[in-house]
Amino acid sequence: MAGHDDAKAKPGTAAEGMGVAKAGWFTELSTMWPGQGLSLKVEDILFQGRSKFQDVCVFQSPSFGKVLLLDGVIQCTERDEFSYQEMITHLPLCALEAEPKKVLVVGGGDGGVLREVARHPYVQEITLAEIDEMVPETSKKWFPEMALGFSDSRVSVHITDGIKWVTEAQPDTYDAIIVDSSDPVGPAEVLFQKPFFEAMHRALKPGGVICTQGESLWLHLDIIKELAAMCHEVFVGGSVQYAYTTIPTYPSGQIGFMICAKATNSGTPLDLSQPRRPPPVAPQADYPPLRYYSGEMHRAAFVLPKFARDALTNSLTF
Amino acid sequence: MAGHDDAKAKPGTAAEGMGVAKAGWFTELSTMWPGQGLSLKVEDILFQGRSKFQDVCVFQSPSFGKVLLLDGVIQCTERDEFSYQEMITHLPLCALEAEPKKVLVVGGGDGGVLREVARHPYVQEITLAEIDEMVPETSKKWFPEMALGFSDSRVSVHITDGIKWVTEAQPDTYDAIIVDSSDPVGPAEVLFQKPFFEAMHRALKPGGVICTQGESLWLHLDIIKELAAMCHEVFVGGSVQYAYTTIPTYPSGQIGFMICAKATNSGTPLDLSQPRRPPPVAPQADYPPLRYYSGEMHRAAFVLPKFARDALTNSLTF
Repeated sequence: MAGHDDAKAKPGTAAEGMGVAKAGWFTELSTMWPGQGLSLKVEDILFQGRSKFQDVCVFQSPSFGKVLLLDGVIQCTERDEFSYQEMITHLPLCALEAEPKKVLVVGGGDGGVLREVARHPYVQEITLAEIDEMVPETSKKWFPEMALGFSDSRVSVHITDGIKWVTEAQPDTYDAIIVDSSDPVGPAEVLFQKPFFEAMHRALKPGGVICTQGESLWLHLDIIKELAAMCHEVFVGGSVQYAYTTIPTYPSGQIGFMICAKATNSGTPLDLSQPRRPPPVAPQADYPPLRYYSGEMHRAAFVLPKFARDALTNSLTF
Repeated sequence: MAGHDDAKAKPGTAAEGMGVAKAGWFTELSTMWPGQGLSLKVEDILFQGRSKFQDVCVFQSPSFGKVLLLDGVIQCTERDEFSYQEMITHLPLCALEAEPKKVLVVGGGDGGVLREVARHPYVQEITLAEIDEMVPETSKKWFPEMALGFSDSRVSVHITDGIKWVTEAQPDTYDAIIVDSSDPVGPAEVLFQKPFFEAMHRALKPGGVICTQGESLWLHLDIIKELAAMCHEVFVGGSVQYAYTTIPTYPSGQIGFMICAKATNSGTPLDLSQPRRPPPVAPQADYPPLRYYSGEMHRAAFVLPKFARDALTNSLTF
């Protein structure tokens, strides 16, 4: 980056090729959000690689710290990752009726979800099924605060296809499955389709919960409507709900979660918008404190803007 | 725009000069959000002008419809303006103990807040104090769905300095004052300062409410902390609260509201997070339906991420 002239840098002029950042500014463009894109200033490019599945890039930004890109799309930044990681994890784990023992994370190779699952002391087994080994490797090197999750003794990491892992799992295995995937273009596309949701449903214990990355209400309401309708078919007798969190570096500044429960043994559907245990605490001294999640935020996250509530209401259980 | 080659347009290459868009892409840069900026594709530039106070620009975007810029900063887009306009209006008007009769809007020259205030049938007088006449003129020409608010018979428009208007108002005049301002750089800077808040407090009836554009929790927590501490000094015996809404085209995808009540006659502070009347309905057939606000959303809007709640807790009443 030597010789780079900040004063002349213009947003977006660096967003060439496969979306990998060069000096100046990075602009995040995608067919998933045509006509708009977040631009971040790039101080330094720390890593660029090509795995079997995707382009992987880490750059240093002045405003959001280190940024991880997969195929030119922002996966996380040091400054705001906690919002997504805390919410995608504690919404399902705090909503479960019984304390979760076995948790599966599909994707999530940066380790941030593992870090959050590991806050829950009653969890006994945390399994990660990540398809691309370059993601954990990159996170361990450049994002130690997220990769913290890998060091918990309850964690086992499997570099494997998440669908294969879930399909081959014994029925009634998991209390919770968290799907921390990229968008439904590229390697993660299958993670938004019915066979995967049927496999997850089968692998859940009665009353078990899934929570999946569910795109943006403002940008992808059609995708979310289809997803909710499909979940409504799969989670018969259970619950289908939707929640969201704010996060500056995801498109339009928010991201949602499809959160569904398998029918309970009692037959009463679980309202997942109600937390059933207090927020977890830090398991060890080097853990960051919770920065986004609280019991009140748990409830509030399920309250959707009227346009979204109206659009989804036929598919949602509560 | 004839001859413009979309395929070659790159985000940000158009963000030159005073932030006014040219062909290609517009990138919103500001010292208020260094190192980041939203880029929107520009289909056509519809209007560019310079008023006594600021640059005014309207462009057509493929993803957000028409966009209004003041000094190169996005004020509203056709696609998402309803979120901000509904929330900054119905949060205060639905939280008031008594039905509001007299409402003052400071700024808000696009007419969107007027449109929302006019949904409330018990309101008798709606006064707008906007400093820059080019804003209502531009809105009436290019944003008819927002400018709808100007046609209500209860509305009176004054092209004047909002501070002067509020300072000269009789004490105990207004049930609610809504400050729909731009950011605290440029003409709106004084609208974030103590003398203006003292003048608003004086102009409110007992139990009256102010609701002001309150920047972003993710970007401007220091500004918001100062603002809340100042309100805590001004609204003695009353309430000081903070709420927010999601909106894709504001920096980081959210914007907040400082919402404060003057002490009531009974002396019991009003918890403004509780709606006290149902959402208003459309007053006439050509009105858009409510698209963001609901009673549940009212309550949820006051639930702040833990990092923000912790930072503001000493200044907030509830």
